[in-house]
Amino acid sequence: MELKHIQNYVQANKQRFLDELFELLRIPSVSADPKFKADVLRTAEAVKEKLVAAGADKVEVCPTKGFPIVYGEKIIDPKLPTVLVYGHYDVQPPDPLDLWTSGPFEPVIQKTALHPEGAIFARGSCDDKGQVYMHVKAFEYMMKNNCLPCNVKFMIEGEEEVGSSNLGIYCEQNKEKLKADVILISDTGIIANDVPAITVGLRGLSYVEVEVTGPNRDLHSGLYGGAVANPINILCEMIAKMKDENNHITIPGFYDDVEELSAEDRAEMNRAPFSLDEYKKALNLGDIHGEKSYTTIERTSIRPTLDVNGIWGGYTGEGAKTVIASKAYAKISMRLVPHQDNDKITKMFQNYFESVAPKSVKVKVTPHHGGDPVVTPTNSVAYKAASTAMEETFGKKPIPIRSGGSVPIVALFKTVLGVDSVLMGFGLDSDAIHSPNEHYGVFNYLKGIETIPLFFKYYAEMSAK
Amino acid sequence: MELKHIQNYVQANKQRFLDELFELLRIPSVSADPKFKADVLRTAEAVKEKLVAAGADKVEVCPTKGFPIVYGEKIIDPKLPTVLVYGHYDVQPPDPLDLWTSGPFEPVIQKTALHPEGAIFARGSCDDKGQVYMHVKAFEYMMKNNCLPCNVKFMIEGEEEVGSSNLGIYCEQNKEKLKADVILISDTGIIANDVPAITVGLRGLSYVEVEVTGPNRDLHSGLYGGAVANPINILCEMIAKMKDENNHITIPGFYDDVEELSAEDRAEMNRAPFSLDEYKKALNLGDIHGEKSYTTIERTSIRPTLDVNGIWGGYTGEGAKTVIASKAYAKISMRLVPHQDNDKITKMFQNYFESVAPKSVKVKVTPHHGGDPVVTPTNSVAYKAASTAMEETFGKKPIPIRSGGSVPIVALFKTVLGVDSVLMGFGLDSDAIHSPNEHYGVFNYLKGIETIPLFFKYYAEMSAK
Repeated sequence: MELKHIQNYVQANKQRFLDELFELLRIPSVSADPKFKADVLRTAEAVKEKLVAAGADKVEVCPTKGFPIVYGEKIIDPKLPTVLVYGHYDVQPPDPLDLWTSGPFEPVIQKTALHPEGAIFARGSCDDKGQVYMHVKAFEYMMKNNCLPCNVKFMIEGEEEVGSSNLGIYCEQNKEKLKADVILISDTGIIANDVPAITVGLRGLSYVEVEVTGPNRDLHSGLYGGAVANPINILCEMIAKMKDENNHITIPGFYDDVEELSAEDRAEMNRAPFSLDEYKKALNLGDIHGEKSYTTIERTSIRPTLDVNGIWGGYTGEGAKTVIASKAYAKISMRLVPHQDNDKITKMFQNYFESVAPKSVKVKVTPHHGGDPVVTPTNSVAYKAASTAMEETFGKKPIPIRSGGSVPIVALFKTVLGVDSVLMGFGLDSDAIHSPNEHYGVFNYLKGIETIPLFFKYYAEMSAK
Repeated sequence: MELKHIQNYVQANKQRFLDELFELLRIPSVSADPKFKADVLRTAEAVKEKLVAAGADKVEVCPTKGFPIVYGEKIIDPKLPTVLVYGHYDVQPPDPLDLWTSGPFEPVIQKTALHPEGAIFARGSCDDKGQVYMHVKAFEYMMKNNCLPCNVKFMIEGEEEVGSSNLGIYCEQNKEKLKADVILISDTGIIANDVPAITVGLRGLSYVEVEVTGPNRDLHSGLYGGAVANPINILCEMIAKMKDENNHITIPGFYDDVEELSAEDRAEMNRAPFSLDEYKKALNLGDIHGEKSYTTIERTSIRPTLDVNGIWGGYTGEGAKTVIASKAYAKISMRLVPHQDNDKITKMFQNYFESVAPKSVKVKVTPHHGGDPVVTPTNSVAYKAASTAMEETFGKKPIPIRSGGSVPIVALFKTVLGVDSVLMGFGLDSDAIHSPNEHYGVFNYLKGIETIPLFFKYYAEMSAK
């Protein structure tokens, strides 16, 4: 298996690789919204067909209490090591729709400043259909050219964007079937197209929905204003109480388990290429905003956060309505760092949120989903194989980075299956995942397809030593 | 003109009076929402037809830059005094629709604890179509029985719920046509069906919409969380800063012009019948909530307020989305008391809101509409006529009260037309105006039709002295 040979295959099949991915991107597999249920199921079937076509055996759509998990495998020799490829075929909701420059489920290739050779614009192009499909096409290459150097299993789920609540049960029930030596995941990114990176740390997540109830019905703000608790004002005051003037989170005990890095580690981390001016310019920010005494790189990697992801209540239509709403709502998420425990943090949030509520309102906190933070080893065979493969395709040794995002299943795999993951993703932070105009560089998509077979090659070779 | 005679007429025509009002209530004249434009215009035509049928002359639908004003008159003798009846045919938006027990534009009569003889459930039943139509039917009675004792003019507008922005211009341009000795308005309420009241004070209103912009696009909360300003968190913090721990509004200068009542006046005001237990029970409140050192009666009448009427931003659909929104919005209104100036207060709000915004966000404040607070005289001929009429129909002298609501046009009429208003309304605070299940007692509707001709009678008699 040589890089040149892989590259020739990729170039020869480039258009087909794009066309096939586009087929997947056209199906709106939004797992959060029940109205897309049939589309999510249809996507699972499409992924199954693609795996079968690429040469996988025992491909099946495994039912769960939620959306199904697509499984497939190719066992060439039980004595050889096994790589379990994980990914997800569900996507984030596309709204706000009016900010998309093209339809979220009508993929098109457009050039951008960071993607002069074009990027695929569609919901899921980067997160995670595009990255999943790199594995399917890399597998196709190895099958067609008879060079698969070890065993491979695929587990592609449909509930990652809503908390993977049935994946743990599936893993528990299929430990033997899922047995592997390493889990390979492409759901993260590199620093830039000429600065490869491998993610070695991920933040955990605690996600809750809160409801504040004032009076038992909407009231006229003239007749009742000033005398009854306005649940929107109260919710705002409660949210404001979650942070102090230094943007430090005020939930008692919140930082107790946070891993504090040494001055050396922090200095090392801050040597990564980063321009504050460019960062502010790209987002049109008057200023950055975050926890005092930490840099932007630190704030997005080694520090926990508390963000309101959505808020609503009262009259939100055109014009003016003088109403005091009965209820106000917010969706709030906290990103967690090693060694915070998401269940513990969710409980702490709940207790604190309830404790800051005045007697004049009723409060309900509903946990949505969560995941623990992880740090993956950099001295493992799998990490070295990924690093060697990327160095060969990018011409530069990748930098180990901690990402601010969460892939909660990494901790789950370690706990339930006892297997470490390697996070070899090819996206860019600027790819607007979870946002309007999500896109994925054609360069990145093809680079992934080139790199993955080399990972298999080096992983098999290094494991054999 | 005798009460008994009026009552007989009302009883004989009761079903028709209800049927005709129902016709008006079935038209969804929501002025705030452009999609109801045709319905609002249709309502103006319907009001015109009703006035013509009742016997008014020169009835016309007068165009404005917004929704038209319906005018009509009956001049029996230029030497006699003239009463200008003001009301509005537009209504508040009906949402949240799911909380209505019957369709907001499908009027039905249902019994309630406070309305054992039944109440008309429909948007606008009390505010203000039902109260406007009392005047049309009272006028019909006086015309049919040839007992109209003075001149009458009608001015029924279609933009009261969105700030009456074109009414001032119309008044300026039609001063001669609108010339009158008193303005009679039924858009307020009584204390209970056995405790009549006349409103002598109204709070003013300043209504603004605010927009807070963080990053220039929605961002993934994992990749950016902790490092950029989340506009929802910031908006909440800014709203929280609008009040201190005593629920005192913190906008500099906000209370400068507030009229402080004497201890005697406050004691007098607090002698009005009011049960805190019943108030809390009716609204299912764990506790009341408001400015420290003031009673509920004071908080809703002589003290200004700041309430968020609506808030929105980020993901508000089902499930979880880990997004940092680019923008967050709120609609905020302040109720004002004598002698606060709504333009001045709006400007103060704007300055303060901008001043508490961190550099990391951009802020936009858009004034919606406003109105100055008013206190009407209790020693005028018009007040005495209203008081005498109500005492005759209710069997009890009405109590002069200050209402927490706003009828901004009262101040406008005084300024532009130089005419005082008398606020003789027949609703109850519990009628749920601006809320789901708005209703208006059949008792109150008919009592209004009985009382209005007596107001005309006493006003003509007392003016002649």
